[in-house]
Amino acid sequence: MSKPPDSGRRSERSRRAILDAALALVGEVGYNKLTIEAIAARAGVGKQTIYRWWPSKAAVLLDASLALAGEAGADSGWSGFPDTGDLAADLKAVLRATADEFADPRHDAPARALTAAGATDPELGARFTDQLLEPQLALYEARLRSAQRAGQLAADADVRLVVEMLLGPLTYRWLLRTAPLTHAYTDALVDSVLSGVAKVTVR
Amino acid sequence: MSKPPDSGRRSERSRRAILDAALALVGEVGYNKLTIEAIAARAGVGKQTIYRWWPSKAAVLLDASLALAGEAGADSGWSGFPDTGDLAADLKAVLRATADEFADPRHDAPARALTAAGATDPELGARFTDQLLEPQLALYEARLRSAQRAGQLAADADVRLVVEMLLGPLTYRWLLRTAPLTHAYTDALVDSVLSGVAKVTVR
Repeated sequence: MSKPPDSGRRSERSRRAILDAALALVGEVGYNKLTIEAIAARAGVGKQTIYRWWPSKAAVLLDASLALAGEAGADSGWSGFPDTGDLAADLKAVLRATADEFADPRHDAPARALTAAGATDPELGARFTDQLLEPQLALYEARLRSAQRAGQLAADADVRLVVEMLLGPLTYRWLLRTAPLTHAYTDALVDSVLSGVAKVTVR
Repeated sequence: MSKPPDSGRRSERSRRAILDAALALVGEVGYNKLTIEAIAARAGVGKQTIYRWWPSKAAVLLDASLALAGEAGADSGWSGFPDTGDLAADLKAVLRATADEFADPRHDAPARALTAAGATDPELGARFTDQLLEPQLALYEARLRSAQRAGQLAADADVRLVVEMLLGPLTYRWLLRTAPLTHAYTDALVDSVLSGVAKVTVR
């Protein structure tokens, strides 16, 4: 079976147009009003083209978010978690950038849509967690293990728990909109996670 | 204008039937497939009765969850946050109970549905946060301020941040289903929040 010589390139152009349309539309109309029809119209493709590649609007958004995450990494020249040897400084730099990303409407709308869809759809939630989230958590874990080797993090600390102590509060405040995500907040979070909040008594 | 003598009691019975039906159905069919029609049929009322009181299925679920939270409090005889004088023990007891509640299907399905709906609907999210969540966070904050007065928590600790350090990781793990919510996990979380995870060096 042979394809026309440029069908791969055309497919890639359509795929890209569909992902861009999905990201733009979810920001404009919100997830609940997002439809496959509107994505197809905006992308200039037929509805069937979308259904050939994706089973649902949530699946389109997941791939769009994966593409966006890849670009964000490429744009910023980010090639991994910083490791300057100063754990607190590195965590603060990354959490500040994460707070800025959550505040960016380009990221906020699709991230809310996927979190919402994944919360009530276990199969989609598992794909979201495995494909989009876990690779990011792995970067935190690698940095924390490096800090354990350097003697900056308790040797018996559960690195997954520490990652959740950093990203859990940030995600909670973002998702529930209980308070603004400022750099002062993320800095205080990093200091509190590292040092603890119990009163240290000198005996 | 006078009402028939028992219309108030009949209304309350209908309201209660609608809330019970909404909770049962969201657990059975999930939020995405939940409809006002199905709630009305299960409750034995007309669709218009529901629309007279609530604008959407999410609004019904919010009131159902508020009723459920009130009952859970009454069932357990819970009249406030424990304050035995031992902050770590009190936090562990409450977080264990919270983990158990998240694992209870009666709570899990409506909580996921409301979190999802609130994530993408700011107006509903604000009601969810103000009416259901903030009263719970206030109980944590009161316990933490008591610990500050007792000299167990750092005097300059931001109590809201500490609450988020406790509930953020738990909620994150629950929502994203990254790992099971065990009592060992919530105990380790409390210890890590209080003591910090940085390696303490003796100088």
